[in-house]
Formats: sequence, structure tokens, C-alpha cells
Amino acid sequence: MGSEFDCCSSEGVILGVDGGATSTVCVCMPLLPFSDHRHFPDPLPILARAVAGCSNYNSVGENAARETLEQVMAEALSKAGLNHSVVRAVCLGISGVNHPTDQEMFLNWIRHIFPGHVKIHVENDAVAALASGTMGKLHGCVLIAGTGCIAYGFRDDGREARAAGAGPVLGDWGSGYGIAAQGLTAIVRAHDGRGPETMLTNCVLETLHLSSPDEIIGWTYADSSWARIAALVPEVVSCAEAGDQIANDILNNAVQELGMSVKAVVQRLQLAGEDGNGSFPVVMVGGVLEANKIWDIGKEVINSILKTYPGASPIRPKVEPAIGAALFAWNSLMKEAKANGRR
Amino acid sequence: MGSEFDCCSSEGVILGVDGGATSTVCVCMPLLPFSDHRHFPDPLPILARAVAGCSNYNSVGENAARETLEQVMAEALSKAGLNHSVVRAVCLGISGVNHPTDQEMFLNWIRHIFPGHVKIHVENDAVAALASGTMGKLHGCVLIAGTGCIAYGFRDDGREARAAGAGPVLGDWGSGYGIAAQGLTAIVRAHDGRGPETMLTNCVLETLHLSSPDEIIGWTYADSSWARIAALVPEVVSCAEAGDQIANDILNNAVQELGMSVKAVVQRLQLAGEDGNGSFPVVMVGGVLEANKIWDIGKEVINSILKTYPGASPIRPKVEPAIGAALFAWNSLMKEAKANGRR
Repeated sequence: MGSEFDCCSSEGVILGVDGGATSTVCVCMPLLPFSDHRHFPDPLPILARAVAGCSNYNSVGENAARETLEQVMAEALSKAGLNHSVVRAVCLGISGVNHPTDQEMFLNWIRHIFPGHVKIHVENDAVAALASGTMGKLHGCVLIAGTGCIAYGFRDDGREARAAGAGPVLGDWGSGYGIAAQGLTAIVRAHDGRGPETMLTNCVLETLHLSSPDEIIGWTYADSSWARIAALVPEVVSCAEAGDQIANDILNNAVQELGMSVKAVVQRLQLAGEDGNGSFPVVMVGGVLEANKIWDIGKEVINSILKTYPGASPIRPKVEPAIGAALFAWNSLMKEAKANGRR
Repeated sequence: MGSEFDCCSSEGVILGVDGGATSTVCVCMPLLPFSDHRHFPDPLPILARAVAGCSNYNSVGENAARETLEQVMAEALSKAGLNHSVVRAVCLGISGVNHPTDQEMFLNWIRHIFPGHVKIHVENDAVAALASGTMGKLHGCVLIAGTGCIAYGFRDDGREARAAGAGPVLGDWGSGYGIAAQGLTAIVRAHDGRGPETMLTNCVLETLHLSSPDEIIGWTYADSSWARIAALVPEVVSCAEAGDQIANDILNNAVQELGMSVKAVVQRLQLAGEDGNGSFPVVMVGGVLEANKIWDIGKEVINSILKTYPGASPIRPKVEPAIGAALFAWNSLMKEAKANGRR
């Protein structure tokens, strides 16, 4: 927001949107000069930021998702004192967008909101997350581990691959939900005699204000929210740090699962080259990887990846995914400008 | 229904009810003479049988559960051409009854339906399942493995213990749901490069009329019914029989989990005596244990139990759980008559 960039808004702005299952964020960024991203100003100039609710259409339906997206973009522009006519490019990174048909659906709608010359990108929210670490370049692998988990890889040539992200029924054991569900299961098993005693019992019962492991079952099925279960990850981490073997086993298993997801993507896309030693970015996003405790899940996942791919370059993004989306749109404009310049 | 038992109905009848998550069965049985159960007539005389919907109050609510139970008992009596006045004892084995407060709730209600002298038992449906194998005696362990799984043990002295039965989130890996979910997970892992190829992919895609493993995710979350997932157990079994390693690993894991559940109950109740060599019945119930294919899960579970407790005596019940409930009520009447006779 420094004065040196005020001029840029007259050159046009870019909207970057990160649409998730809980909230949707839109940032309005002035069009930066088309120089190398290593010369980006720090901090990046952001003209406005707006927040709205869920825009995953699988969760709230198409109409509600569109309304939320339209509203959050209008609010960001309004906060910046601008209107739709100055927008040069938009990137929507939305969870739930997995197939070309999903992209088509959103593109057909958003085309009517902006003038025809505006460059529009509709992508999965993993694109925004990756770009938040690579400053807009769509190359490398992003590992997202919050309530859910997914590894998503992209190559410059347009190829992409994903691993995990199939939800709790289909074995996302490295997710926050997976870690916490294994913790709850360990308590039940210790209680009914199938498993060894664990510190998790007292720790979790205290947190949940329950008096007996029997009550864990009722608590678990009283509400189907995945995030509510995943909120117990800190209990598993603190028991592991206190030396509990079961909690350590659960975290080590999660590390293995998350590392395996990244490695599967890297292998399929040959991101590390044919010899496996090439360099590529691995962007790490989400509460499970950002815990920054003594038991550092993110660090252990990186170590696991480095053992197989020594050229992996871990990145913990300094900007939020909505800015990643804006930088991706900026990067695409820049590539186009360069290509036109060469013609 | 033989003429030799027609007389018995004038002596009174017993109602046995098996109330589950999908249906509720009530049988009306004449009061058999109080001799040893080894002298039971074969087949047992059943005057009438009625079927109604779900009576698990966690699923349908208290009022609906009571209405279903009242209706199914009235229908059984009506089919037998009898009225409530000839009932001597009732045993309701209902899923969802886990705590004394659940029992109280049903007892307070059913007291108003039958005259005060009628003996009434309200138990978990595991009691009906165990009694269907022990011909009414509440001693031993019952292992139920259908869509869900649970091991429930009872001693003559009234002590009881259970293991597993905590549902899919809390690690019931030996259940039909658990087996099938692991099968679906293996397909996703093979597809995204985290796991080895498996025959399950083609087998399950064909069964579900899907064209790609990507579609497994959408199929899985399109409907939250556990039974719909569990219906894929036969696919896992047939792939295991065809030599698929992943499918074999899943079934071996299920066998270990189910065996461990029984062993945990036996140990806590000391059903095999202090030296672990004593004899006790293990009643095996549910689709997962009754498959009777080349790969026989039930047989493998029994072998696993016998390795630890050589005195375990496996029983596959010849009568349905509702008859087990009736026999349990009969057994209680008989014990009471004997006790009165000794006074």
C-alpha cells in the first residue's frame, strides 16, 4: 500500500480468490511490473482484502457458491475504491473444482461479470496454495494438511497429478482428522483391552470434559463435522512429546503417509528429473504442518521426502493462498506479455 | 406348531424380540417344559413370527422405537390367535440399549402394556445373539460381524464386557464396513501411486458401474449409509480368493481384529478360567462370519481364538436372534422356578 504502487492501480488490478470449505478470501493487488518475481516488493502491495463464507459448491450448492464469490470480489474492489472495469485478471482457487466440467461451470458464469478482455482462471484451491509458495509459478508440489490432506503437483508443461485427498473414509491418515481419529481409537482400544494404555486417555477426556472412555463413542458420532475431530491433533502431539508410544506411533504414521503422498506425485510427474536428484519446490500448507512444536510433523515430512528426493526444496509460504492466486494470474499475464513481445 | 405344543399356549407364551438397525423380529413361543435345554424339541415350536422396521431409538427416536416394538409384539400375538393375557415373559434384545438408563426407559414403558406378573427383560441385541447360540444361557462370548462388529461377553454371575463396536470412525476394522472401506482405499492408493496395483480396482469398478478410480471418491461420499459400503465385502473376498495380495492383507487384518476383540472380552471376564484353558462358548453371528466361501473369515477368526484359548467352543447358531431372546426369557423363568422349588 506504499505510494509507489498507487500508480499501478491505474494500470489495472488483479483479483486473487482462495475459496475453501469454511471461508473465502479475496485480495485485490495492483498490476506489478513484469519483471522477475525475485524482484517482488516485500511486503507485497495489497489494495484490499475481503472475507466471505464457504464457496465449495459441493457443500453449499452452485448458486450459493457463485453468490459468495461475486460478493467477496465486489467487496474487495469496493474497499479499494475501484470498480470492475480496472480488473485485468482474476484467479479463483476454489476447493471442489476437480474436473474440466467444474471449471466450465464457473467460467460460463464469471464471463458475464467481467469485460471480455479480462483473463480468468478457475482452478482448484491447491493451485492458490502452491502459488503462495512459488510466488505465482505453477511448478512443483504442494502438500496441504489441515482437517483433510492432499498432495498436488504441477509441471510447467501443464501436466498435473494428485495423491490422497480422498477424505476420511478412504484413508487420509496424514490429515488432522486422520491423526485425531487414530488418537480416539487408541483410547477405545486401551479401554476395552485390545490395546495398550496411553496418556491420550486422560489428556483427551479432560479436553472434552468427559468422565469415561465409554463416552468417547457418543461424543464422536454426536456431530459429523470433520473439523471438530481434527481439533484434537494438539492433544496427540503433546502426548507424543511427553513420550507416549501410541501417540508417537500415530504421528510417525502420519509423517509416512504425508511423505508418501508427495513422493507419489513427484514420481508420476518426474518433478525431480529422470535421475531423481533434480530440484523442485515442495510448498507446505495447513495446521498439521505448521504446528512448530517440539514434535514438528512438517519437519519430519520434509526429512522423509529428502531421503528419496534430495533436490526437494521445502517452502513454507509467507503469503496467504489468495495472494498466491493473484500471483498466479499475474504470472500468466507476464508469460503472455513475454510471448507477445517475442512475436 | 406341532399339535403336541398346542397345549402349551394355554400354559402361556413367551415373546422374544430382536430389534436392529434395519428390522425388528418378534417370535411367539409356547412355554416349554422346564427341563434341561439339551432336551429342547428340534425344530423349536414357534407359534408366530412378525417383522417390523427399525427399533434402535438412537436412529429413529424413542417414540418410533416404542411404536415399532408394540406393533411387532401385537402382530405376533395376533398371528398366533392370542392376546396379551397369555404372555408369561418378554425379552427385548434391542440395539442401542447400552446403559441402565436405556433399560429403564424401555421398562417404564413396557410395564404398561403387560400385566404386572409378566417377566420383562430389556437387553442389548447382543444378548439375543448370544442366547441364539447357547439356547438361552447368558454365558460366553458372542462375536457379531455384519456392517458393524462387536464382541460381547457375559458370565453367569452377571458380569459383562464388550470390545470394539465403536463404529467406523473408531477403528472397527473387522466389520463389513471396515473391510470394504479398506478395499476402496486400496483402489485409491493404487490409482494415485501410493500403493501397489490390486485386482480390487477392476472388480469394484465393475460392480459399481464406474469407469475410473477417480469416481470412487464421489461414490463413497454420495451417501452416508454404512451398509452400502459394507455390501462390497464379497468383492474383497473374491479378489483374495483369486490371489490378490492386498485383498488377502485386508482380510487377514480383519481376522486379527475380530479375534483380538473376542480375546479382550474373554480375558477381562476370565471366561477361560484362570489358566486360560477352560471351556466357554463363542457364538459367531453376522454376514462377515457366515460367508462360507473358500476364504472363510469366520473359520480363521476361530483358529485365531483357539491359539490363545484352546477351550473356546465356536457355535454358529441354528436359530435366529429373536428365538435367542425368547430362550433367554425362558431360561430366566426356569432358573426362578428352580430357585422357588428349592425354597
